[in-house]
Amino acid sequence: MSQVDSALQRSGFERIAIVGLGLIGGSIALATRKAHPAVTLVGVDTAAVLKEARERGALDIASEQLAIVAGADLVILAAPVRQNVALIGEVSRHVTGATLVTDVGSTKRAIIETAASLKGLLTFVGGHPIAGAASRGLGAARADLFSGRPWVFTPDRETPQDAVARLSAFVSALGAKPHVTSAAEHDRVLAFTSHLPQLTVSTLMRVAGGKAGDSGLALAGPALLDTTRVADSPFGIWEDICLTNADNIRAALDGLIRELALLRSHVADPQTLRRVFEEAQMWRARARLSVRHGLVQPDSTTREE
Amino acid sequence: MSQVDSALQRSGFERIAIVGLGLIGGSIALATRKAHPAVTLVGVDTAAVLKEARERGALDIASEQLAIVAGADLVILAAPVRQNVALIGEVSRHVTGATLVTDVGSTKRAIIETAASLKGLLTFVGGHPIAGAASRGLGAARADLFSGRPWVFTPDRETPQDAVARLSAFVSALGAKPHVTSAAEHDRVLAFTSHLPQLTVSTLMRVAGGKAGDSGLALAGPALLDTTRVADSPFGIWEDICLTNADNIRAALDGLIRELALLRSHVADPQTLRRVFEEAQMWRARARLSVRHGLVQPDSTTREE
Repeated sequence: MSQVDSALQRSGFERIAIVGLGLIGGSIALATRKAHPAVTLVGVDTAAVLKEARERGALDIASEQLAIVAGADLVILAAPVRQNVALIGEVSRHVTGATLVTDVGSTKRAIIETAASLKGLLTFVGGHPIAGAASRGLGAARADLFSGRPWVFTPDRETPQDAVARLSAFVSALGAKPHVTSAAEHDRVLAFTSHLPQLTVSTLMRVAGGKAGDSGLALAGPALLDTTRVADSPFGIWEDICLTNADNIRAALDGLIRELALLRSHVADPQTLRRVFEEAQMWRARARLSVRHGLVQPDSTTREE
Repeated sequence: MSQVDSALQRSGFERIAIVGLGLIGGSIALATRKAHPAVTLVGVDTAAVLKEARERGALDIASEQLAIVAGADLVILAAPVRQNVALIGEVSRHVTGATLVTDVGSTKRAIIETAASLKGLLTFVGGHPIAGAASRGLGAARADLFSGRPWVFTPDRETPQDAVARLSAFVSALGAKPHVTSAAEHDRVLAFTSHLPQLTVSTLMRVAGGKAGDSGLALAGPALLDTTRVADSPFGIWEDICLTNADNIRAALDGLIRELALLRSHVADPQTLRRVFEEAQMWRARARLSVRHGLVQPDSTTREE
């Protein structure tokens, strides 16, 4: 506990406003409440969500009006990506240039571009906690959602150094492992590790369903449903991700299509098949290690093209 | 219990030989033992596997020699697909034309073609229990593996009608839901519901790992590992499936590549994105129903091309 206390003291936040109390925003509120009950927590959302958040003891102050963020020393935008992009301009009218603002969106370049146009009106550092759950919304929020998970920050050359240090101390206190990279690298990597898998399994399920039909699906094993589970993710969130990371997603789809076409030409070639299986299994073993340790090791393996 | 008894009486098998005691063969032995202890169970495999099978009480007679199948009224080939294709010729030298032989392989045309060349030497009906487990081998075998799961039979015009009836009665007693279709339709449908998903996620993991590298994978959520779980399936089994269903798998890959390329051109188009998500979610909902009920309903939805 004393370690957590000192981490929050280093971050120095006394009043934190969270805009959007869904799975991520709600979990940040619950985790902050637990890690440091002295912080004043301000929440902005619809009346129904605010009521639920107060009932769960996640907020000190609740308002449907964004103006309530005035006076917070940290503002966290936790709505879907394009709503955050729209909200940050509004936030700038209620805060000072010293107010630290961050977000939790799955793509980083769009909001950073908008934040750059608000220079002097607020201090922005893009953020992305790599955490999720099968269910969305405040109902699924929990204090330990970020435990052992990476929380990426994407400062640029204009970002004051202590801003990243304070945010890192803050998310460490919530159990997360802070990680710093560029917005461009974040968006490129996530296109391959998150956005490509999502679009691929959605397309796979469409094709399998359309070509096998109900009678064919009755002969499918449970593996098809397990494999395509993320296809049930809400469209709205993915619309925002696709529209704000289209270039990287196109490149990722190109990479996958190229490899699938190669495999298509070698379906009956044992050597090609073996290479596909062995490489996939090697990368899965390495991903398990990475996910388990939440560590970012020096990387000699990325193949760029 | 009396229902099960009468089902086995209808099947009329008194001595059943299982060649290959892995996950499927072992589970058939355990399920048969439980459903009808009076059946004499004969097992063929390596000495080590036979020892384990006897210790689990799954066999009455164990032998490393295929000749032991002589005298069985049902022979079940439960080795990987291409081994079954090789084994059936050998089996034909030890049995009579009246002996019923079936297999449990994931593709059906290859073995049926070979069986056709052995006409008069045995009576063959292709089979495929749609059941599996995360682990392979006899260690993972269990008596309830087929409970509520489809068990497909693929007779042709030459197949004696009572052969399918007897096999259906037999697998019903093991808890499975027998289903009859043609080998061609089986192989076409499974290419979309099983073989395409397998090859797609193996390729996806290769591409994601290769392009994100270890540092990028450290920023991946657990969803990537969940989505690609089946990529850890043993290569040997999939080599056989790909080599014996290459034409259908090529067509399935073509279908997926075409849809991915279309999506690639419309990544920033909300209407296309919405359609992909909504159709995928619709097919998942329908697949859940099909898998839950294990039913094959009249199908008005298959889109052929």
